[in-house]
Amino acid sequence: MNAATARTAVTVTTPHSRYDILIGAGLLADATAWQGLPAATQAVIVSNPTVDALYGPALQAMLSAHHARVSRLQLPEGEAHKDWATLNLIFDHLLAQGCDRKTVLYALGGGVVGDMTGFAAASYMRGVPFVQVPTTLLAQVDSSVGGKTGINHPRGKNMIGAFYQPQRVVCDLATLASLPARELSAGLAEVIKYGPIADMAFLDWIEAHLDALLARDAAALAHAVRRSCEIKAEVVGEDEREGGRRAILNFGHTFGHAIEAGMGYGQWLHGEAVGCGMVLAAELSAALGMVDTAFVQRLARLVERAGLPVRAPAMAGARWLDLMRADKKAQGGEIRFVLIESPGHAVMRPAPDATVLRAIARHSATLPEGT
Amino acid sequence: MNAATARTAVTVTTPHSRYDILIGAGLLADATAWQGLPAATQAVIVSNPTVDALYGPALQAMLSAHHARVSRLQLPEGEAHKDWATLNLIFDHLLAQGCDRKTVLYALGGGVVGDMTGFAAASYMRGVPFVQVPTTLLAQVDSSVGGKTGINHPRGKNMIGAFYQPQRVVCDLATLASLPARELSAGLAEVIKYGPIADMAFLDWIEAHLDALLARDAAALAHAVRRSCEIKAEVVGEDEREGGRRAILNFGHTFGHAIEAGMGYGQWLHGEAVGCGMVLAAELSAALGMVDTAFVQRLARLVERAGLPVRAPAMAGARWLDLMRADKKAQGGEIRFVLIESPGHAVMRPAPDATVLRAIARHSATLPEGT
Repeated sequence: MNAATARTAVTVTTPHSRYDILIGAGLLADATAWQGLPAATQAVIVSNPTVDALYGPALQAMLSAHHARVSRLQLPEGEAHKDWATLNLIFDHLLAQGCDRKTVLYALGGGVVGDMTGFAAASYMRGVPFVQVPTTLLAQVDSSVGGKTGINHPRGKNMIGAFYQPQRVVCDLATLASLPARELSAGLAEVIKYGPIADMAFLDWIEAHLDALLARDAAALAHAVRRSCEIKAEVVGEDEREGGRRAILNFGHTFGHAIEAGMGYGQWLHGEAVGCGMVLAAELSAALGMVDTAFVQRLARLVERAGLPVRAPAMAGARWLDLMRADKKAQGGEIRFVLIESPGHAVMRPAPDATVLRAIARHSATLPEGT
Repeated sequence: MNAATARTAVTVTTPHSRYDILIGAGLLADATAWQGLPAATQAVIVSNPTVDALYGPALQAMLSAHHARVSRLQLPEGEAHKDWATLNLIFDHLLAQGCDRKTVLYALGGGVVGDMTGFAAASYMRGVPFVQVPTTLLAQVDSSVGGKTGINHPRGKNMIGAFYQPQRVVCDLATLASLPARELSAGLAEVIKYGPIADMAFLDWIEAHLDALLARDAAALAHAVRRSCEIKAEVVGEDEREGGRRAILNFGHTFGHAIEAGMGYGQWLHGEAVGCGMVLAAELSAALGMVDTAFVQRLARLVERAGLPVRAPAMAGARWLDLMRADKKAQGGEIRFVLIESPGHAVMRPAPDATVLRAIARHSATLPEGT
């Protein structure tokens, strides 16, 4: 057990930066995990009330060895607050504390905290260093790695942001113990994602270890996080800004974003929408002759076992298409889907509207008559 | 005359990008100035009501050769509107027009339009290409070159932003004909700046040609813009993110920003505050034994001849220090001034508060008694 949960590191190398993802149980309390970060008089830990109450004081104490002043800031919780008003709370705090352009920000929390803290770090005085300290499975395997930061706009998710790489990502697996079951499942959606797009052996492993993952077995979580980060680091290293291959990481996300936007941010968790979105994207891949129905069923079964929805909410077809055309991956009004060309390999492709709507219909709740 | 006003180009090379500043009279109507920019279905020209009325339709017509849809957006005018609410007008427009991540933004106007359009371009969908089309002298010689973008925060100028380089800068000197005299003077402050920090021969030239510049002589303006851009390009190329030498471009700006913030943004033009700030910074340099009093007087005389204020507004000493400590160049609460070590050479240095306040007092209006 010790060997499996011992600390490991995955290195992310992009054209302009290089940083480590540290993975292990108990890293928040491990002084060596925090050495070598940029020196600065001040540090600010940005979190939300729940996570800050659990881990804020411990991190603050740890960082006091490196910074003369370490303050903590709680942002209101949830995707619904991933907006300018909340982002501005960070700027207000930094300016009120007299933070200079060397100040280091620490994002302690899930994807919302990480995305907003990262964008604040990218923008405050045109850029200060920041460190990701993800405390959700989703953030550990996906959002804290790769430098995507941003906030939502009423018309679209993550529409405003920056590519801005952290100095380090510190994944303390022990923090996953406090994660609500629904969020653990949401994180598993992004873990599962790496199988169909890049590594079917990993998909086999997930199928075999899903019960252990749901039971939060430390060794299983360590492997899932490490392998996910390895795949993400490899893809992001090739394509930091999503000109090409990086887009495959959005498997399930075009449908998923439409669900999130259509239902109102915060109704479905991001990972829930992605879980269901992967089933729709697999179905569309099958409809285009790329994979067989067994593959779709296999993926849907795994998504369902992970505690995730496999039926999309009832929405009119025109609404689906409108929402997906507003996606950042759309170009010149054409929706580009991440599809599974063959198990383990993803491609970007447009698809006929009728085919898309049929795929959605096969995995959707029915609209009430007359709508 | 023709030879002097013919189009010239200055190339800016930073670690991650390379682009040209085109300088000439009539470039808005010169098709060759717009060739080779990134192709995209859509383009958006961001401007303000005054500048858009003068040049928007012509630029829109010109760009229609390159983009299927070219729309125009007017932002409210002035530094007081360089805030999030105005920035968000750009995002609203881009999303309402269905702009994708290839859409090209054109910043048509002065520094405020350029800074906000640049930051919008840096942030929209995490980055779309943009082109600077500066129509003020200040923007042509300073703000449109070098990739600094951003907005103000109630607690400080340009506190939120990004380093984000344009694809090209197109300086049409003909647009300076419509510039109000006060703004022409403000631009001259940044032109004058390049002398003391980098090129005393250029300062000699400015002294000899100031009347021609104030009379908007095309050949004189062409030389002033080109030489200013050359110096800025050289400095920025060495140090894109202001770790070191780039900071010398802020000569006069620490005092200037304090004046702008202390008076309320928009009361003093940025260039006016910089003009006065250079006199204070020169005085401080003299107080520290770096230059002689004759140098301070020479610079003050030139600033005054350019139509710029040389006396700072009345502010309490503590207020000056507070405002300057909030400057982005401050580190760990220590104010770092750009000083003239010897004519043509600038350095960054802290200075004792008492010396700073004495230098300010020598060039300030007197506070009413009891304040």
